[in-house]
Amino acid sequence: MSTPFATTPATPYYAVIFSSLRSAASAGYEQTAARMLELAAGQDGFLGAESCRGADGFGITVSYWRSEAAIAAWKQQAEHRIARETGRRDWYRHYEIRVAKVERAYGGPPT
Amino acid sequence: MSTPFATTPATPYYAVIFSSLRSAASAGYEQTAARMLELAAGQDGFLGAESCRGADGFGITVSYWRSEAAIAAWKQQAEHRIARETGRRDWYRHYEIRVAKVERAYGGPPT
Repeated sequence: MSTPFATTPATPYYAVIFSSLRSAASAGYEQTAARMLELAAGQDGFLGAESCRGADGFGITVSYWRSEAAIAAWKQQAEHRIARETGRRDWYRHYEIRVAKVERAYGGPPT
Repeated sequence: MSTPFATTPATPYYAVIFSSLRSAASAGYEQTAARMLELAAGQDGFLGAESCRGADGFGITVSYWRSEAAIAAWKQQAEHRIARETGRRDWYRHYEIRVAKVERAYGGPPT
């Protein structure tokens, strides 16, 4: 990506805030993370995502969606379900997921 | 902090998603970031915050608030206003702010 910022439409839309602390286990993690982003981008209602992880292993990924229905469909996606299982078992010490309705948005300075 | 995760109450509550790309300018940044967290923690309605920044300079901070009114009060806080001005001028190449109502939340595995 040329920019780490998601280009989102006018509000309202939805955000899934995924906060996670990685474990030491890393086999398959990077490939799966890239694959999940690729798959999500092909889902109806996907608007974009922003992601970062610090040197301490704590990271936040926010994905943006047109609707709650789009989020529910992504959650049911077969390959995503398997990846989540592996993540829960191997890759994350802990995570929190929050689903939120974005009501206002603004940015600065202009890029 | 012993954990990078915010301990938030039952939904609904609000999230301010602050995505930013740092500039090369860093004078005063770390001190101000720490001071802002300290100040926010003293604001009525502050519930917690989660934050990360990658080696590429892109970071996400999500702060959680009891209400829209609490977010508005924090935005008006005098020292915070000054810090925002400096941030806009010196510390950030670009940022996006999204205010969202958290409707559902769940976590795993148990810590």
